[in-house]
Amino acid sequence: MTLANLEQVLAQTQGGHDLYDLMVELYPICRSITGNGVRETLNRIGNRIPIQVQEVASGTPVFDWLVPLEWNVRDAYLATVDGKRVIDFRDNNLHVVGYSVPFRGRISRAELESHLHSLPEHPDWIPYRTSYYKENWGFCLSHRQRLELHEAEYDVQIEASLEKGSLTYGELLIPGRSDQEVLISCHVCHPSLCNDNLSGIVVATKLAELLGGMPRTYSYRFLFIPGTIGSITWLARNQERVGRIRAGLVLTGIGDGGGVTYKQSRQGRSLIDRVMTHILKHRGKPHRTIEFYPYGYDERQYCSPGFDLPVGCLMRTPHGEYPEYHTSADNLELVKTESLLDSLDLVLKALYVIENDMIPVSTNPFCEPQLGKRGLYRAIAGQKEGASKEMALLWVLNMADGRHTLLDIAERAQIPFEAIHAAATLLEANGLLQARAGNSKEA
Amino acid sequence: MTLANLEQVLAQTQGGHDLYDLMVELYPICRSITGNGVRETLNRIGNRIPIQVQEVASGTPVFDWLVPLEWNVRDAYLATVDGKRVIDFRDNNLHVVGYSVPFRGRISRAELESHLHSLPEHPDWIPYRTSYYKENWGFCLSHRQRLELHEAEYDVQIEASLEKGSLTYGELLIPGRSDQEVLISCHVCHPSLCNDNLSGIVVATKLAELLGGMPRTYSYRFLFIPGTIGSITWLARNQERVGRIRAGLVLTGIGDGGGVTYKQSRQGRSLIDRVMTHILKHRGKPHRTIEFYPYGYDERQYCSPGFDLPVGCLMRTPHGEYPEYHTSADNLELVKTESLLDSLDLVLKALYVIENDMIPVSTNPFCEPQLGKRGLYRAIAGQKEGASKEMALLWVLNMADGRHTLLDIAERAQIPFEAIHAAATLLEANGLLQARAGNSKEA
Amino acid sequence: MTLANLEQVLAQTQGGHDLYDLMVELYPICRSITGNGVRETLNRIGNRIPIQVQEVASGTPVFDWLVPLEWNVRDAYLATVDGKRVIDFRDNNLHVVGYSVPFRGRISRAELESHLHSLPEHPDWIPYRTSYYKENWGFCLSHRQRLELHEAEYDVQIEASLEKGSLTYGELLIPGRSDQEVLISCHVCHPSLCNDNLSGIVVATKLAELLGGMPRTYSYRFLFIPGTIGSITWLARNQERVGRIRAGLVLTGIGDGGGVTYKQSRQGRSLIDRVMTHILKHRGKPHRTIEFYPYGYDERQYCSPGFDLPVGCLMRTPHGEYPEYHTSADNLELVKTESLLDSLDLVLKALYVIENDMIPVSTNPFCEPQLGKRGLYRAIAGQKEGASKEMALLWVLNMADGRHTLLDIAERAQIPFEAIHAAATLLEANGLLQARAGNSKEA
Repeated sequence: MTLANLEQVLAQTQGGHDLYDLMVELYPICRSITGNGVRETLNRIGNRIPIQVQEVASGTPVFDWLVPLEWNVRDAYLATVDGKRVIDFRDNNLHVVGYSVPFRGRISRAELESHLHSLPEHPDWIPYRTSYYKENWGFCLSHRQRLELHEAEYDVQIEASLEKGSLTYGELLIPGRSDQEVLISCHVCHPSLCNDNLSGIVVATKLAELLGGMPRTYSYRFLFIPGTIGSITWLARNQERVGRIRAGLVLTGIGDGGGVTYKQSRQGRSLIDRVMTHILKHRGKPHRTIEFYPYGYDERQYCSPGFDLPVGCLMRTPHGEYPEYHTSADNLELVKTESLLDSLDLVLKALYVIENDMIPVSTNPFCEPQLGKRGLYRAIAGQKEGASKEMALLWVLNMADGRHTLLDIAERAQIPFEAIHAAATLLEANGLLQARAGNSKEA
Repeated sequence: MTLANLEQVLAQTQGGHDLYDLMVELYPICRSITGNGVRETLNRIGNRIPIQVQEVASGTPVFDWLVPLEWNVRDAYLATVDGKRVIDFRDNNLHVVGYSVPFRGRISRAELESHLHSLPEHPDWIPYRTSYYKENWGFCLSHRQRLELHEAEYDVQIEASLEKGSLTYGELLIPGRSDQEVLISCHVCHPSLCNDNLSGIVVATKLAELLGGMPRTYSYRFLFIPGTIGSITWLARNQERVGRIRAGLVLTGIGDGGGVTYKQSRQGRSLIDRVMTHILKHRGKPHRTIEFYPYGYDERQYCSPGFDLPVGCLMRTPHGEYPEYHTSADNLELVKTESLLDSLDLVLKALYVIENDMIPVSTNPFCEPQLGKRGLYRAIAGQKEGASKEMALLWVLNMADGRHTLLDIAERAQIPFEAIHAAATLLEANGLLQARAGNSKEA
Repeated sequence: MTLANLEQVLAQTQGGHDLYDLMVELYPICRSITGNGVRETLNRIGNRIPIQVQEVASGTPVFDWLVPLEWNVRDAYLATVDGKRVIDFRDNNLHVVGYSVPFRGRISRAELESHLHSLPEHPDWIPYRTSYYKENWGFCLSHRQRLELHEAEYDVQIEASLEKGSLTYGELLIPGRSDQEVLISCHVCHPSLCNDNLSGIVVATKLAELLGGMPRTYSYRFLFIPGTIGSITWLARNQERVGRIRAGLVLTGIGDGGGVTYKQSRQGRSLIDRVMTHILKHRGKPHRTIEFYPYGYDERQYCSPGFDLPVGCLMRTPHGEYPEYHTSADNLELVKTESLLDSLDLVLKALYVIENDMIPVSTNPFCEPQLGKRGLYRAIAGQKEGASKEMALLWVLNMADGRHTLLDIAERAQIPFEAIHAAATLLEANGLLQARAGNSKEA
């Protein structure tokens, strides 16, 4: 099985249900930037692909930051004074503000107010809130729930721990013939949120599983990390290694029903940027490409000026542009099996280009070689001119001067990379060109 | 007072009335490319700013040219044979063709015809005409006046002198910390014309007055010169000095009610070109930017191939595009106080960018620094994402690799320079970046 | 007579009738990629211009190809068994598939079917078909004719020879002061087809005739060659010489009534590409410029990667975009005298630019020279500003820094080359600039 047989590869996802099923499995777990929820998530991913789980102690300096205290929550609720739980962490782990400090006590309704977070414009949805770097506690609840809190006093119980421990992340290197790497990164720090967090996780997991069973030129590094502090921690511990990264993608929010959004790397015209632009152009599905900006997901860290790695970000509807973002409505209904599968398809197509890009060098650079005598040209004479297969052959031969990659040729010819690659393979088999290693760097 | 407090600076113009009042004062003076009108004009400007008045003798070679003879006119009229003045220089100094040679005599109506200039399409306006380089005399008059000249003969009196003297111009250097210069140039050779001539003069004068009272990085050179021959003369006398000019503006026609027109320097992407484009884009007022062409005002000389200085031209409605151009209708009514003030505002904004552009170098180039612990990031978590102040911080940090200026960053981020500069100042104060001298040269 | 007097030059075509008449003369000849039809065609061209006819023996290796056997056909027909010719080569030489092998025999209507070619969508037209590299025979006929072939059997007679001989082409070098060359190439391998083949031949022939009578800077090489194998053969025999080619045009399909199509060279911004773009922009007639693609005419060989010559292709309606293409309807009615003349006009205009492009160097680079004292500026003062002649003078002076060619200036000024050239000539005559050899290479 190779990337060239995309249908065969995708068939191994059971029509995408494998992806969706893993999402269902991971959905109930209460993740945060540290803690047992991340460990449990990585443990389940580890059932499918051989990730290494890394623990980095709280307080470890990572560039300008410190690895934070570890947070775990066992129980949390808001109850009436007669003991009836009205807001309960067991119902939905979004109910507790992330990194809430432990608290137990009876407080007035008025005092409670500043600890409540709801969304008047979406009265049935629970918002997702955190307070990582400022000690505080709070509850997130639907606005309808909030409006029903008529009692004078309530009992608050947040049975959580915020103490020295570690930050946990998962890493998997799938070696290829070259030590040059492609980086796939996703964040694992959000609780029960599907598009923001789980969609990237399940696509990355399946991708690693599939790549493990295929021949590879590049080595593939997968990171399952808490957002921001996770990529900062990984970069701090691997600073000498990042020079091997030739291309990378942050996968996030790739399960909703919207079209694909590709956010370019800071470099803007790096290999991954050109590959994604090329594929999106020829896939014929709704998409947009947006320029890099220093906000969003972990591409912010990969593309910080000291690293400036060629890492873009793949999304469908961008964060903040869909109302369910960071609410309880980012759930198993928002994410579609077909969107997960389509996102995986897109990434596989991109990797196909990256794996197969090379510099063709014609063995007959002076005039065209005689394709007819090799049985490569027969079709043209009798057919409509410009038939794409023959045009691909002619384009590859014409551009095979040792200064252009297959992707360069595909871009100039406006022919999909796979057709250009197929033509090059056929020409190479006929002794009409030689492949030289090299990929499409900045134009 | 600094350029950062633009409102405070502009308040010193009395709502622009200072500018308008100087225009009223200078309006009646009969200027030409030489003569006492220029001296009188410079004298009055000298009451406000300490310009040095230069005199260059007639006949002095200046590149391919010679400084011309000096022209002064004391009286001039066209009278009926019974002594009634029908066209009188004392009514309007446009009535005499500039550089008319002395003449006294009675001539037939028919012979007079070739010496008359009027505008049939604007019968109440007097055109402005000169004959600098060909000896001639003539009268400009309204077409209505012309149609009333029914007498058989007229007495002509042009009491003028055209003789060896000098060309006069004013110059002011306001030194800054650096000997690198910003050039501000305007022409002072037109008689009673407001937009073409006086608008540039009064804005330049006020600008010099304001800059004199502020801290400056650059040195500012102001030239009040007769058009063409004045800039040629100045360049001939200062050829070795022009290498210091980092940016420059010719100010002309900046008082009419139209939107701003910026004409690029011959270089097209020099510092001043980029600055003007950036500011005009973000000011949100009508404007256009036009490419350099070798016609117009003194930018023709500054941008001649041997100099190729980075000097653009700031206008509102371009010369030739408003009907009042070079007629008596270019008067105190055509020019608006608010347009003069708006033009001054624009130039001050440009100088703010030029003065404050620099190359920020991050002290934490690897990953983002932790803004939260410095109180710089709090806003983002709870607010609508992309709030511009925080985005400006992130953009500056992301681009602070020592290869980008603040203007580069402002352009890429599509955020006004002043917000980018404010972010850089805040980051510098927090030890997160260092400023390195440097401005935005050609991209 | 020079290219500057285009009307005078074009007058030598008798309003284009010279071109049309030669086409009429060549139309009946049965050409192919080898054989006596080509010789006869070159013979008639040789009556007008002194071409050298080259013969290259069958079997000669030319790069990846071999010069093919020579084909000649003396007679060919399809007849009923009672001897009535129903399809007759004497009626139209398109009736025989090019390179049909000799054949004589009676065959069934059913067996005949696979040897017939017609166009159901254009039932009155005879298609043009060849089988150069696969031994076969066949007849082309109108679809109406085909539908009338009701007999059970037919007699086939193809009295042709396909045997060792030679490939024939014509070549003419018109030397100029420089050994740098401009290449004009056209194909001579199509039988009675007017636009595809004869239009290029007659324009090239007239062009050579005209250029022979004019002073020239460049040397001009004309090739009258069979398509593909002809250019391959010529390139193989002249490999060391092609480095002299500064610009070239393949002329083909330039007689139909459509607008001009210029197909760029592979380089895309070479001299000929820039020249054609410039002229087409200013001619004010319908046109389009298309990017190079490795299909079409002999530009495929000239632009193969080992050569990458600056050779574009001039067409009117591109091959395949007009229904008459490669059918009997590409006849004397399809091609218009005025189109042939217009194509010649365009090529002459292009050669005018190529011949006259140079690098002007101002003798007065500092400030403008005083045009008035030389009588070159008078017009401006009294006329509408921007009058194009004076603007051309100013543009040339402003850009005459030794780094720009006249074509560079014409492009930037958006003024036709001829006006820029006229201005430069005038300035040079006045000692204001010197011409330095050089043309407009890739920008």
